[in-house]
Amino acid sequence: MTPTQQLACDLIRLRSVTPEDAGCMPLMIERLEKIGFETTMLRRGDTDNFWAVRNGKNEGPLFAFAGHTDVVPTGPEENWQHPPFEPVIEDGYLYGRGAADMKGSLAAMVVACEEFVAAHPEHSGRIAFLITSDEEGPAHNGTVKVVEWLEEQGEKIDCCLVGEPSSTERVGDVIKNGRRGSLGLELTVFGVQGHVAYPHLAENPIHTLAPALAELAAEEWDKGNDFFPATSFQVSNINGGTGATNVIPGDVKVVCNWRFSTETTAAQLEQRARKILDKHGLKYEADFKLSGQPFLTAAGPLVEAAQAAIESVTGLATELSTAGGTSDGRFIAPTGAQVVELGPVNATIHKVDECVKAADLDSLKDMYREILKRLL
Amino acid sequence: MTPTQQLACDLIRLRSVTPEDAGCMPLMIERLEKIGFETTMLRRGDTDNFWAVRNGKNEGPLFAFAGHTDVVPTGPEENWQHPPFEPVIEDGYLYGRGAADMKGSLAAMVVACEEFVAAHPEHSGRIAFLITSDEEGPAHNGTVKVVEWLEEQGEKIDCCLVGEPSSTERVGDVIKNGRRGSLGLELTVFGVQGHVAYPHLAENPIHTLAPALAELAAEEWDKGNDFFPATSFQVSNINGGTGATNVIPGDVKVVCNWRFSTETTAAQLEQRARKILDKHGLKYEADFKLSGQPFLTAAGPLVEAAQAAIESVTGLATELSTAGGTSDGRFIAPTGAQVVELGPVNATIHKVDECVKAADLDSLKDMYREILKRLL
Ligand SMILES: [Zn+2]
Ligand SMILES: [Zn+2]
Repeated sequence: MTPTQQLACDLIRLRSVTPEDAGCMPLMIERLEKIGFETTMLRRGDTDNFWAVRNGKNEGPLFAFAGHTDVVPTGPEENWQHPPFEPVIEDGYLYGRGAADMKGSLAAMVVACEEFVAAHPEHSGRIAFLITSDEEGPAHNGTVKVVEWLEEQGEKIDCCLVGEPSSTERVGDVIKNGRRGSLGLELTVFGVQGHVAYPHLAENPIHTLAPALAELAAEEWDKGNDFFPATSFQVSNINGGTGATNVIPGDVKVVCNWRFSTETTAAQLEQRARKILDKHGLKYEADFKLSGQPFLTAAGPLVEAAQAAIESVTGLATELSTAGGTSDGRFIAPTGAQVVELGPVNATIHKVDECVKAADLDSLKDMYREILKRLL
Repeated sequence: MTPTQQLACDLIRLRSVTPEDAGCMPLMIERLEKIGFETTMLRRGDTDNFWAVRNGKNEGPLFAFAGHTDVVPTGPEENWQHPPFEPVIEDGYLYGRGAADMKGSLAAMVVACEEFVAAHPEHSGRIAFLITSDEEGPAHNGTVKVVEWLEEQGEKIDCCLVGEPSSTERVGDVIKNGRRGSLGLELTVFGVQGHVAYPHLAENPIHTLAPALAELAAEEWDKGNDFFPATSFQVSNINGGTGATNVIPGDVKVVCNWRFSTETTAAQLEQRARKILDKHGLKYEADFKLSGQPFLTAAGPLVEAAQAAIESVTGLATELSTAGGTSDGRFIAPTGAQVVELGPVNATIHKVDECVKAADLDSLKDMYREILKRLL
């Protein structure tokens, strides 16, 4: 086993289901401190976080690796071909919960730093780690709290590489240079409860909602742009009715969500949604919640360094993408940092028999090291 | 207190919440047998029913009073101004659960027969009672079972007067000469479950349903006719979603109901609903359930006798109506009987402090007696 594979296995063996760290951070910190990092533990609520930094020989950018030690639950362990916390390499694949999301990346980051520091002990700038044990959960006490703390310290990350599994078929084929925003809506439409036999004495909120909902679902919110797909709207939940078959309900509740591009703002989406609801004469309460602004690192030293590093290791021309769910990048990007996500193939993340090609972890380590070399 | 008021009070005192009879039938039967009725008890499942008949001197129509001894639950008794099972007359109103629905009517029927038989011991035709203790509940073991038994006996009711509270402001101002049909639909619309961040991999069944539901709600099913209001469609329940805000659900369930006139059949409603669902390309399962055909007694001796009797007692020109919920008339009408419903003012039925004008029960008794006089 290579050093990266070995460290990945050591991390997978620790049962760090959100928000437990289960000893992952001490393992990483021990290795990092050996090569000159200084660590600050930042426990917040039930969540462990750490910030570690290695100062180079003179001024230069602050480059941070960001990631999480927590993993999602395994489901019934008997459904796994290999026990989820007993990592094993079989036919070239490393199996275990977190192999792809994202203990493999954490191992690659640590070993990349070891190699880089050995070759360039006098590098310029600074290398940092921003690691949390709650990225998969509510994420209230994780990265967002470390970012607040950094602001208090007057620290500003220039370039941030998030180790989320960005690749689709081959390691490095896709990097995420941004993410869509996420806007939630909890909507209650009010009518007048009554008996189905006396509809003139009632007002059915499901009937008044239906055409408005049809219009919301059919609306083109924007066309997206070069970096973002078009903004999408989805209803996740709808509930109305007393259970009785002869009662017109007094209200109906709808939960929906926009994933939005930089072509539209959350405020515009809210305004347009309200306009549609108002147009249909609905009596309603609408509770909009912004859970993440869209962010984008369109070009610049970090994207260029990542593209060049990937090409130098694999020969691949990588694709820039902003698709998919949110990541902790949404907390770091608003500080003005360049942010990209680069990690292993994501085909098995959050699933039974999560795995990653073992050799990919070494390629990833090489890419990370090459990025450091280009930036520092 | 008048004899009708007295008997109504005696019946109200018995706690006959569906399907309990609590001794109401024995009270009625004792009085009826004294004036020459012969009784058959027809207990079915948890439900008491009886059929009682008094033969007149020669051939003539079979006239039946129909009704129920059961009452709906009271809710918390402390919310009642007067305890629901302790009848009391105050300011001219008789208070108690069942005063209007329909122990007052039962008392009026019995006393009307007593007066009629005393005056016309040799009446023509036959007078009958068809009484159940489950009209307010599932109604599986009540009137429908007595009707089956009558068919087995080769008996056929010619005229049936149901004592349901038909009046709106003054006793006798409205009689029901029919009821709308009731057709239920349980609809499941199928999509493909997925993550809201990847809508292209999912298919949101709430989105595909919305425009179809809007069209169903806006559809004019018919315009009604002289006897029936227009057919109405109402959604009573809609449920879709896993509870999670980031999951596009795999299906959505809708429960709806038509109350339909004689201008449209249940088969036509189903066909038209399916056409709308198909037009919108829905993948769905639709379970239609007919719970009652519409029925109508447009004209004839019974309606005429009821109108004339009401006018002779109150001077009112009564209104014919088919509005409102279903009644046990739906089981009797299909046998070919003329059916009308005539009972007290329905403003307080099923509510707290149910009551009826005490004098109205005597007017009702007079109307019932006058109907008997005109038909037998
Ligand atoms: Zn992750
Ligand atoms: Zn009733």
